[in-house]
Amino acid sequence: MRGLADSQVAIVGLGLMGGSLAGALRGHCRTVVGVARRAATIDMALAHGLIDQGTTGLASGVRGADVVVLATPVRVIVRQLAEIGPLLSQGCLVMDLGSTKRRIVAEMARLPDHVQPLGGHPMCGKEVSGVEAADPAIYQGRTFILTPLPRTSEEALALGQALVEAVGAHSLVLEPERQDYLVATLSHLPYLLACALIGTADATTSADPAAWQIVAGGFRDTSRVAGSDVAMMVDILLTNRDEVLKALGTYQAKLEDLARLVEAHDEDQMRTVLSAIREERLRMFP
Amino acid sequence: MRGLADSQVAIVGLGLMGGSLAGALRGHCRTVVGVARRAATIDMALAHGLIDQGTTGLASGVRGADVVVLATPVRVIVRQLAEIGPLLSQGCLVMDLGSTKRRIVAEMARLPDHVQPLGGHPMCGKEVSGVEAADPAIYQGRTFILTPLPRTSEEALALGQALVEAVGAHSLVLEPERQDYLVATLSHLPYLLACALIGTADATTSADPAAWQIVAGGFRDTSRVAGSDVAMMVDILLTNRDEVLKALGTYQAKLEDLARLVEAHDEDQMRTVLSAIREERLRMFP
Repeated sequence: MRGLADSQVAIVGLGLMGGSLAGALRGHCRTVVGVARRAATIDMALAHGLIDQGTTGLASGVRGADVVVLATPVRVIVRQLAEIGPLLSQGCLVMDLGSTKRRIVAEMARLPDHVQPLGGHPMCGKEVSGVEAADPAIYQGRTFILTPLPRTSEEALALGQALVEAVGAHSLVLEPERQDYLVATLSHLPYLLACALIGTADATTSADPAAWQIVAGGFRDTSRVAGSDVAMMVDILLTNRDEVLKALGTYQAKLEDLARLVEAHDEDQMRTVLSAIREERLRMFP
Repeated sequence: MRGLADSQVAIVGLGLMGGSLAGALRGHCRTVVGVARRAATIDMALAHGLIDQGTTGLASGVRGADVVVLATPVRVIVRQLAEIGPLLSQGCLVMDLGSTKRRIVAEMARLPDHVQPLGGHPMCGKEVSGVEAADPAIYQGRTFILTPLPRTSEEALALGQALVEAVGAHSLVLEPERQDYLVATLSHLPYLLACALIGTADATTSADPAAWQIVAGGFRDTSRVAGSDVAMMVDILLTNRDEVLKALGTYQAKLEDLARLVEAHDEDQMRTVLSAIREERLRMFP
């Protein structure tokens, strides 16, 4: 297995995450090859200096690569894993950037023996999407979850970690089940809350032109992730359904507690509960 | 009634909002007098150049003022309105910065005839509080709701609008009922959602040290307002209870719709619903 500096890295999918990763990896590896469905995406990635070369062909893009990173929506990753297996070079490291890991890792387990699979999930993103939003700096200082399989060699994990460090992130090794459980609460749940908030504003205030003038930072921040890429989120919700529903159930109960608190009009109790929540928020983000 | 430039303005309460308003008004009026409970707050406001002079006495602070702005929690504003009425000069403009307006305006209606009441609610804030967080720039470009009473003269409203413009905001005149309805969805509801999200993370993931490493921008933004000042929020929830509960009810129904959508595993329906929400978010924040 080659070191990162000598590797040809193929990034499949040049959206926000893949395009940014490609740009961040240039200079840290031998060649960055970009693979996208549309020629216009390749042209833009080349024009923005994100890739060394590009192709719209998945097979030609991954052929000869030392590292392949699948940066497409989760269920596309699952399909592409099945497709590329036979095409990959001996010892090729196959990674991905999907937000849910159980389903992907199960598919990675079926890759041919001559390749090394390693699940990945960088904890960053934006509510904008597409190669035009790519920003090689988005990985800087962020946590990049890695989910090795039992068959993943130490050498392959080390190469994955070198890639993570090369883009400025720090790696965190987790079991796929634990990662899917944690991100259900910490990432997928906030998306659904934000969506329900937009839906509520649409139902209650959007007919009043004054609403647009008074909507302030609180609403903007709380609803931000409702602007996330829909294809990405649909695949996440479909592949992490049980964990998301559990987190949502807990959330609905917490919200019902707060509704009762407001209804009860008990000032002392309100102060106690809301102070504890505020302190917890400050502990999370000092 | 004096113009703003000739006015002595008393700001009662030198927290984030009052301290910032004081600092933003300096240079736009004759004198800014700060009133706070603690001498240390006055000292800090003086040291930061937010006020020209300060006092811990409410009576001495508002005496002789041409404009009084109450910048305390909503129910404190209600108490202070009853207290200061008899002390105010002829023609004094009495404003406030409270987030709910029906209760405050009802109390303002009972002020002596010789003063001019005008409700106010600037649409800005931060999850930090206290005079040390004061920032005269927070009003820049923001909407500042004004709720005049039937007895409020045009001259008094014009003076209130001049004050709003002096701090860089733009005024929006609304009826108190309409403002309370709108902010229930656009401001108070996001607070409760953020609180329930923190409560959920506390229940599901906070025992796992990995949670702290993977918590990312989405969770941070969606939960930000859970760090809001508790005394301020308790008063808001107590004085806008019915509107907040109505908004919360609509929200719970929207969330239940989303839960059913995730449960149903219907990809097309999911894409349709989430795309419409995303487009609505983009319309709100282009």
